[in-house]
Amino acid sequence: MYYIGIDLGGMSIKAGIVDENGSILSHGKVPTGRERHHSLILEDMAKLCRQLLNDAGLTETDIYSIGVGSPGIPDKKRGVLIRSNNLNFINVPIKDELQKYFNLDVYLDNDANAAALAESIAGASMNTDHSVLITLGTGIGGGVIIDKRIYSGFNDAGSELGHMCIVYGGIQCSCGRKGCFEKYASASALIEQTKEAFAADPDSAIGSVCNYDAEKIDARTAFLARDMGDKTAAKVVDQYVEYLAEGCMNIVNMLFPEVIVIGGGVGNEGENLFEPLRIAMRKRAYTLDVPETKIRGAKMENRAGIVGAAMLGRKI
Amino acid sequence: MYYIGIDLGGMSIKAGIVDENGSILSHGKVPTGRERHHSLILEDMAKLCRQLLNDAGLTETDIYSIGVGSPGIPDKKRGVLIRSNNLNFINVPIKDELQKYFNLDVYLDNDANAAALAESIAGASMNTDHSVLITLGTGIGGGVIIDKRIYSGFNDAGSELGHMCIVYGGIQCSCGRKGCFEKYASASALIEQTKEAFAADPDSAIGSVCNYDAEKIDARTAFLARDMGDKTAAKVVDQYVEYLAEGCMNIVNMLFPEVIVIGGGVGNEGENLFEPLRIAMRKRAYTLDVPETKIRGAKMENRAGIVGAAMLGRKI
Repeated sequence: MYYIGIDLGGMSIKAGIVDENGSILSHGKVPTGRERHHSLILEDMAKLCRQLLNDAGLTETDIYSIGVGSPGIPDKKRGVLIRSNNLNFINVPIKDELQKYFNLDVYLDNDANAAALAESIAGASMNTDHSVLITLGTGIGGGVIIDKRIYSGFNDAGSELGHMCIVYGGIQCSCGRKGCFEKYASASALIEQTKEAFAADPDSAIGSVCNYDAEKIDARTAFLARDMGDKTAAKVVDQYVEYLAEGCMNIVNMLFPEVIVIGGGVGNEGENLFEPLRIAMRKRAYTLDVPETKIRGAKMENRAGIVGAAMLGRKI
Repeated sequence: MYYIGIDLGGMSIKAGIVDENGSILSHGKVPTGRERHHSLILEDMAKLCRQLLNDAGLTETDIYSIGVGSPGIPDKKRGVLIRSNNLNFINVPIKDELQKYFNLDVYLDNDANAAALAESIAGASMNTDHSVLITLGTGIGGGVIIDKRIYSGFNDAGSELGHMCIVYGGIQCSCGRKGCFEKYASASALIEQTKEAFAADPDSAIGSVCNYDAEKIDARTAFLARDMGDKTAAKVVDQYVEYLAEGCMNIVNMLFPEVIVIGGGVGNEGENLFEPLRIAMRKRAYTLDVPETKIRGAKMENRAGIVGAAMLGRKI
């Protein structure tokens, strides 16, 4: 028996057949075509699943359930996507639509939550009860796992970890607040901080890394320039780590997960980032009398979406 | 069948016999005498319980379990209080000690967590699955209830909601961090803010409320002066509400509880505080597409400690 996981994105629909340990047997993808009516998108999702089943020589009776991970706010109980700006979806009945094609249970959740679940079942936080995933990308996405299950509040809209204020009155965020974690510790924020440092110190090695074109500065630039011994870049990295530690420590003091898994572009720095982060977090610990939260890099990478979605229907 | 709850504080030991709905049948208290060896304090806890049983005409066989709520960090599994500065306790085996006197299960938790449980069983967040209690006192204490149970992380040390940074690089906190929520939104913080405003504007009505003695300023002073039409006091209250909203919204975006219960000194302001708080929180909401977290005043008051401790052993 297997699970089907669908990773519904603004650009593409990815789907896979997954076993109960989170291993992908087969997978495929088609373009989302998000300008179309949602019923056409859902029809393509169903077709892709049918195709995968046929290719694997399986039928519906070999499948426990279908799970869908999507950007936006889900109503998990009804299987309705309340709103997804990425997809132009408002109140789309994902579950009912898919059940037109399959006589199977359908589960829906936010894609960041699904990714956190994938890490906890088959990735960096495997074998823990309580963990948190944060992805450092354009913004900061996140998912909270409590007692091996996704926790997202009474209305399914929680674990917006990027929209936690760490700088009162700070940089304006698109969410309406000021000083959100993601305005200081996302990949985009790091790029912005690197650009500012380069503008203030054009002689910095940041220049040679980005070929003296500020538009080519990315989330690795400051780390690379620092590794060349550049002090301006080192300051950028140090400050970035302090911001990241501030947000991570808020997560720790509130939730004390066993592991915070760090994914997204900046997460690829690995120990280059995690070791100074641990030190910056330890400085902020209110107690050292208890085991500390581990910091680990995400492991599931582009499998997280499919596996997490598939595992939505797995009973513990 | 009943439960015994013990509220172990730095000044007094309070205990009560509680039914499964969280109603107190009888209660009593004795001084803690915290300068003594912990075995003597635990002996007094046991004596108090025995006394309450005798007075109620009950025996051990009428009791499901004993619960203890205490300041500090518990190891819940082993029933050991790892550290409590209030009590000078380090690694005190509460459970083993009490089981010398009673052949009953013994449960231990942090007192703020126990209070949150009490509110969720018999108080302001009754009949909800997910709720948070914050107490605005000397600091900000808190407890998180998820799926009707206390959640405090993998090491029992979580839900330190007062030690969430909302002002990067802000006021130094005793926990080692800077800019913690409690340095801006506790009762002590409000008193400090009121004193500063009075020092800057000695003609403010704050003066008449505190009888022109800054040392008499308390957590009500700014609210009272504001209600007299004083602009300086109104600014203090408005700013305080903004800080409080910032921290509460961090709790919402992370956990989206159905209710945030507000207790402690400032919580007594009731709707005078809660209504502007709701407005300040709504301004910060990343979505209004989902039901919002309710803000309610704590109801359990001085019963919270005993009832919460008693309910630690209640099976759901």
